[in-house]
Amino acid sequence: MKALLTLLLPTMLWAQAQPPNIVVVFCDDLGYGDLGCYGHPTIRTPHLDRMAREGTRLTEFYVGASVCTPSRAALLTARLPIRSGMCSDKRRVLFPRSKGGLPASEITLAESLKAAGYATGCFGKWHLGHRKPFLPTRHGFDTYYGIPYSNDMDRVRGSPKGRASFNDPKSEYWNVPLMKDEEIVERPADQTTITRRYADAALAFMSESTQAKKPFFVYLANSMPHVPLFASDAHRGKSPRGLYGDVIEEIDANVGRVLDFIRSNESTAKNTLVFFTSDNGPWLPYGLHGGSAGLLRAGKGTTFEGGLRVPGIAWWPGKIPAGRVTAGMATTMDLHVTALELAGATIPDDRTLDGQDIQGFLRGGSSPRTTVLYYRGATLYAVRVGPWKAHFITHGAYGSGPKRTVHDVPKLFHLEHDPSEQHEVGKKHPDVIAKLRKIAATHRASVEAPPSQLELR
Amino acid sequence: MKALLTLLLPTMLWAQAQPPNIVVVFCDDLGYGDLGCYGHPTIRTPHLDRMAREGTRLTEFYVGASVCTPSRAALLTARLPIRSGMCSDKRRVLFPRSKGGLPASEITLAESLKAAGYATGCFGKWHLGHRKPFLPTRHGFDTYYGIPYSNDMDRVRGSPKGRASFNDPKSEYWNVPLMKDEEIVERPADQTTITRRYADAALAFMSESTQAKKPFFVYLANSMPHVPLFASDAHRGKSPRGLYGDVIEEIDANVGRVLDFIRSNESTAKNTLVFFTSDNGPWLPYGLHGGSAGLLRAGKGTTFEGGLRVPGIAWWPGKIPAGRVTAGMATTMDLHVTALELAGATIPDDRTLDGQDIQGFLRGGSSPRTTVLYYRGATLYAVRVGPWKAHFITHGAYGSGPKRTVHDVPKLFHLEHDPSEQHEVGKKHPDVIAKLRKIAATHRASVEAPPSQLELR
Repeated sequence: MKALLTLLLPTMLWAQAQPPNIVVVFCDDLGYGDLGCYGHPTIRTPHLDRMAREGTRLTEFYVGASVCTPSRAALLTARLPIRSGMCSDKRRVLFPRSKGGLPASEITLAESLKAAGYATGCFGKWHLGHRKPFLPTRHGFDTYYGIPYSNDMDRVRGSPKGRASFNDPKSEYWNVPLMKDEEIVERPADQTTITRRYADAALAFMSESTQAKKPFFVYLANSMPHVPLFASDAHRGKSPRGLYGDVIEEIDANVGRVLDFIRSNESTAKNTLVFFTSDNGPWLPYGLHGGSAGLLRAGKGTTFEGGLRVPGIAWWPGKIPAGRVTAGMATTMDLHVTALELAGATIPDDRTLDGQDIQGFLRGGSSPRTTVLYYRGATLYAVRVGPWKAHFITHGAYGSGPKRTVHDVPKLFHLEHDPSEQHEVGKKHPDVIAKLRKIAATHRASVEAPPSQLELR
Repeated sequence: MKALLTLLLPTMLWAQAQPPNIVVVFCDDLGYGDLGCYGHPTIRTPHLDRMAREGTRLTEFYVGASVCTPSRAALLTARLPIRSGMCSDKRRVLFPRSKGGLPASEITLAESLKAAGYATGCFGKWHLGHRKPFLPTRHGFDTYYGIPYSNDMDRVRGSPKGRASFNDPKSEYWNVPLMKDEEIVERPADQTTITRRYADAALAFMSESTQAKKPFFVYLANSMPHVPLFASDAHRGKSPRGLYGDVIEEIDANVGRVLDFIRSNESTAKNTLVFFTSDNGPWLPYGLHGGSAGLLRAGKGTTFEGGLRVPGIAWWPGKIPAGRVTAGMATTMDLHVTALELAGATIPDDRTLDGQDIQGFLRGGSSPRTTVLYYRGATLYAVRVGPWKAHFITHGAYGSGPKRTVHDVPKLFHLEHDPSEQHEVGKKHPDVIAKLRKIAATHRASVEAPPSQLELR
């Protein structure tokens, strides 16, 4: 018995003392309605559905912006993009010609966790600056494997014009580089196998970190299902939903591989928080190549719910309740702060953070979050407080032209009664409008916005 | 050991030899998107979600019509309503002044199962004729407890005008009778407790049938969430979704009671098929008092998917796979035929049935159904074959006026790629349109429609 204890003790102590591994799985333009467990009828996501059954499914989970660059900045800094210069009313995201990127003065989740002793790996799309000073390896990641900006940028001359290139996409139509750390290792990146290769790299990294007895932070930022869509031979032509479904089903299968690794290792099985989400809502103007926001209104690029509310699945057997479905509000910025708390990392106290610690919420309690701020570019368009959301400005779906409308009387919706934002109730609740106006004004007055990084060319 | 066997044997043999109990839970105007497991963010349905986890969730399940009377006729006869006279282009449903009802010549599911030795009970809304010759007890049900037509009919003079009566509904605004067998036992029916009382009656009936060692058929046809909405004190004011959510959560709780009874009795636990569904899609013009079709287009009264595609959860531990989600097509008419097969009941061979046996599908195989016919009143509006759906005629949302449009070139959608019917693809697929036109024409030519029962006054 004593021998057995001696044998077990180091492992047990390590498992107790070790801060939890943290895995954040991002997708690109995956909509609120695109998973089986969020109600899609023909996209099959058994691994994510199982993740939800074993964990908690959030029905009111938000990102920090409804397009790529600022949303990623929000996750990695725990701050609204307006505070880091990672948004703009002129350019929505970074482009290959952009000279800017996430400033060195920002403290990323990877930096904080690395300082707390974590091995840190970024696998997938970055899109926070592709020039050297802005790369993941300069922002706290030990290693990086992925593409530096969107997969539809860098269009090759002579490839089929416009959206014709999307109907039967080939990687060589886009000259997107694949990078390892700070070097380009493949150009154009072979996008047909890229989802699997990101997961392969993440698995190898988790395995190494586990063997080295180091806690790990994995940021697995799938570049799919952003158009153009690519699936590997194993998945292409398999989903009833067509190519878009193939792509989601391939992501699902690879999340399954990651979870299987974690489940099968004693040191990770009970000590890893995995969070699955998306960077913003579906890119609706792309039709069948875009996803679905389910019952939510509009999609990517807008400040309707379909733009910023995304799937959110939290998984940590033994710590996060299994099978819970909750409408408690939370954001990617909360996820960041919570990860710092769990890791025992230093919480920056010299700047404003917009995230809140949601450990208690994820463990079964209620969420401390009461407010969501909806920015489009550098402008606050809408505010949610409790169930109430006031739109001060609205904009048509991304890509469908500048239908920007300023509302003298904000459009008010009760999101818990009316998640689809169909039934305005402002006339009955002038007091609520007044309250939300005040919260918006106070926020606007408090924000100090540095120059935009997205406008540097 | 021998004594134990002797003790167990009768029970075991009975459990083997006994045909399965059959429970069909209907709702009234519950939409495709109104349950947690179908993606609603703020309506909490833990019992139905559990039912789906323990059973199979169908994502392409259809009713026979997008309004009440003909949809119920389809379930109970296994025939399209056009064959039984239970539809009309002039009157969509039966009204308190109607003189017609389901003809005696129709063979209902209850009649067939009763002839096969089942105890048969109908609990809830009937709406297939409220005059004596048409009541459930004249159509094969041993017992009946419920309201004979919709809960918004029989408006009392002096009650608040129009929709004002719905905002704070009281049972006494509507003079709807509650019937026990063929007698009125309460008028107006107290609708605040009605969902629970239907379940109470069904539970008592199941208990009696079980004690009498008779297989039972329960048709639990909730009259909620049809407007006006009512919830009991235990549920009113509890759901984040407001009154509509209270109502669904009360239905959920009562389905939980029914399932708990079945789970807890040895003779029922392994030998009962329970199927949960709705009579048609959500009544959208009623705003927050109407439900959600999720990502599907339109709702009740239309031949878009939101009108006829509804939640469908099949539960039978040990026979129906647990946790399966399937996009195989099926209809309430198939459910009828399947129940007959399971019961060893006689399948009528002197008339056209529109249902198909889906036992193999429910047990884990693929569905034999390839076609769905979408009627509005007595007119075929659309046809689905495989993933393809052609709209020959479309109509605006029910209640929003007569925006009927005949399409010279049918509107074609690929429903598995595009469940929301947003992206017409007819130009690319003239061959598919030709095929669907032919199927529609063949069907129309084959149908012999008796006089409509809905037009008799």
